[in-house]
Amino acid sequence: MPEFLELLAPSEALTRLLAHLPASLEGEEVETQSALGRVTVAPVRAMQALPAFPRTTVDGYAVRAADTFGASESLPAYLQVVGEVIMGAAPVFSLSPAQCALIHTGGMLPDGADAVIMVEHTQSARPDEVEVLRAVAPGENVLKVGEDVTLGQEVIPRGWRLRPAEIGGLMALGQTRVWVARKPRLGVLSTGDEVVPPEQEPGPGQVRDVNTYTLAALVQAEGGLGVSYGVIPDQMEALRSNAARALAECDAVVITAGSSASTRDLTARVIDSLGKPGVLVHGVNVRPGKPTILGVCDGKAVIGLPGNPVSALVIAGLFVTPVVRRLLGLVEERLRPILQAHLAVNLASQAGREDWIPVRLIQSPSGLLADPVFGKSNLIFSLARADGLVRIPPDATGLAAGEIVEVTSM
Amino acid sequence: MPEFLELLAPSEALTRLLAHLPASLEGEEVETQSALGRVTVAPVRAMQALPAFPRTTVDGYAVRAADTFGASESLPAYLQVVGEVIMGAAPVFSLSPAQCALIHTGGMLPDGADAVIMVEHTQSARPDEVEVLRAVAPGENVLKVGEDVTLGQEVIPRGWRLRPAEIGGLMALGQTRVWVARKPRLGVLSTGDEVVPPEQEPGPGQVRDVNTYTLAALVQAEGGLGVSYGVIPDQMEALRSNAARALAECDAVVITAGSSASTRDLTARVIDSLGKPGVLVHGVNVRPGKPTILGVCDGKAVIGLPGNPVSALVIAGLFVTPVVRRLLGLVEERLRPILQAHLAVNLASQAGREDWIPVRLIQSPSGLLADPVFGKSNLIFSLARADGLVRIPPDATGLAAGEIVEVTSM
Repeated sequence: MPEFLELLAPSEALTRLLAHLPASLEGEEVETQSALGRVTVAPVRAMQALPAFPRTTVDGYAVRAADTFGASESLPAYLQVVGEVIMGAAPVFSLSPAQCALIHTGGMLPDGADAVIMVEHTQSARPDEVEVLRAVAPGENVLKVGEDVTLGQEVIPRGWRLRPAEIGGLMALGQTRVWVARKPRLGVLSTGDEVVPPEQEPGPGQVRDVNTYTLAALVQAEGGLGVSYGVIPDQMEALRSNAARALAECDAVVITAGSSASTRDLTARVIDSLGKPGVLVHGVNVRPGKPTILGVCDGKAVIGLPGNPVSALVIAGLFVTPVVRRLLGLVEERLRPILQAHLAVNLASQAGREDWIPVRLIQSPSGLLADPVFGKSNLIFSLARADGLVRIPPDATGLAAGEIVEVTSM
Repeated sequence: MPEFLELLAPSEALTRLLAHLPASLEGEEVETQSALGRVTVAPVRAMQALPAFPRTTVDGYAVRAADTFGASESLPAYLQVVGEVIMGAAPVFSLSPAQCALIHTGGMLPDGADAVIMVEHTQSARPDEVEVLRAVAPGENVLKVGEDVTLGQEVIPRGWRLRPAEIGGLMALGQTRVWVARKPRLGVLSTGDEVVPPEQEPGPGQVRDVNTYTLAALVQAEGGLGVSYGVIPDQMEALRSNAARALAECDAVVITAGSSASTRDLTARVIDSLGKPGVLVHGVNVRPGKPTILGVCDGKAVIGLPGNPVSALVIAGLFVTPVVRRLLGLVEERLRPILQAHLAVNLASQAGREDWIPVRLIQSPSGLLADPVFGKSNLIFSLARADGLVRIPPDATGLAAGEIVEVTSM
């Protein structure tokens, strides 16, 4: 099959697709408390310092550190207790030499204090006096103003997916609203004269639509919105008009084509008719998913995926997921956890082609085993049985049993 | 500090907590297309076989395999083409010996056919005749009825979090609705006289509420709902009445206590007053988070977390996350990816205590480095700067620079 030699590797195909896409979507302002998983469109800067006042990190006595120098169990320093710091209020007193004040974790240091001695390192015989049993250094047990964040500091970069910690950080700064990328809308069209909606009982020769729902779920997991345009008949005009509507209403479009050569060509013709430059990549050197079509129409990605559900989902992970991330403006700084396992069996692959093999993970005495879920690629439950995918790179003719492989989760 | 010796390790504390909790929440029926990330409450069985009819996996000719035996490029088999299988319909003809039919990927095999020869392995000189250039075995290039799923087969186990593949599998079976665990409601109360809501400008000595939002986000990420009960004054009656209301309205309650010893004791007294058995664990041998309180009140978990935001979020990962998973009935079969890295510096730890250290991950020529984000534990942005957490186990007195550590993502 000489056509394989002309097909692009998935990574090159993706590079070509992304090169034709604009940077990312515009932002929208949302409530910080609803922003988990959203992606910042601009760096977030602190509009105030944190902490905003000097705070103690322990329960004890606010002191002037110099008053404790030389103190020990055998030779305590005696300090006068001039008050107690009330939580949530500024102290109404300041410390003169040889004075201290009772303070609770998180409390504000009074003027004159520069350290806190833990209550465990003191003794108290009289209510207005405390014995300090060890010295503290200036700044000890104290959070200084701006020690977490200084005024104007960039606290969250652009293109950053918000986790619980960032949500909390924004709240600490009083930033109860945040600018994030709008959720990309991805239109999904299923074609195939044999495909019926899932709620319908298929007749002889018919199957239910799966791809609309797996792709919408994949997009949702990445932080986008899957918009279904239903099952479209394998006819040029029907596909063209529905795809044009999807393109107008969405930020990217995926067409899962019927599997036969004629409907794949139909998809390519439709993409070419929708806008410039049209089809960029027709066929990718990957299994499953060789008939993949990548196009851009007037700045929006339009992707033709194979009709069979396993190919469609695996290939969507290679091309649709990166498009959603690009639209979100995600800066891929965060390192992703990986699962390593020993391959349970030999896997053959055609040189020059990249293969993605669904595997189950099995705990064994010698470590984790990745056991391929063999099955023809139309079997959606072969994916539901899999824990992840193993990649056989294009330059390999296979992988040997026992080799350590990375398992990409699905 | 002898109290450390009596404190439970986090794993033992969690075991004690979970032992007092009921199995899981009841289920609810939801639309399959909205069920991404939800957890099944019962095994899902196939109400039909998949495929429901014999299908071809390639474009070519449906044949009786025996008619091709012995065929080769030099000695082709000649078969009569009796028709074309229309997609989405049962063939209106059947095959007699020496007959074949044009068929497209996904098409239904006609009666009499038991294999498909790929179009690439045929030649056609006349429209009603095809030359078969190689033999195919019975079943070749054919999906048999039930090859993916048989009638009655368990296709998704109980306690399974639904991914895109399972959503697709359910749709293939026509199961457009699915029974999943109700979303656990977790009530969150923040206490501390110094704490004000985030939208408020803090006065001297005051700080904004962070914990309500980090904990709600953590619970949301696991598939639950965080329900805020606001900032509660450090008074027995106010805390008790609000906690009682949260307990009545939610499936579990978290109280982030002011950091001082007196407000921690208040939390314990409130938990004991809310139901039986009350406080189970008072203090855990972990840093940060020693003052953690674990209780169960009439079958619902009530957890008292330290007030400082870093401790609260780290400790919530150890105790709140497992409670949410228990409520969801999640069966932990799926293996989680991990990040391994070389520790960048020596880390000391007290023997007998488990430590959790926020780290940044840095790519270096010698591999991934885990570099601790040092900072006093009140600094929420120290967590926002971290890629994950490194655990120092209780039996270690520290970890050495260069050691390989697992980094738990946050």
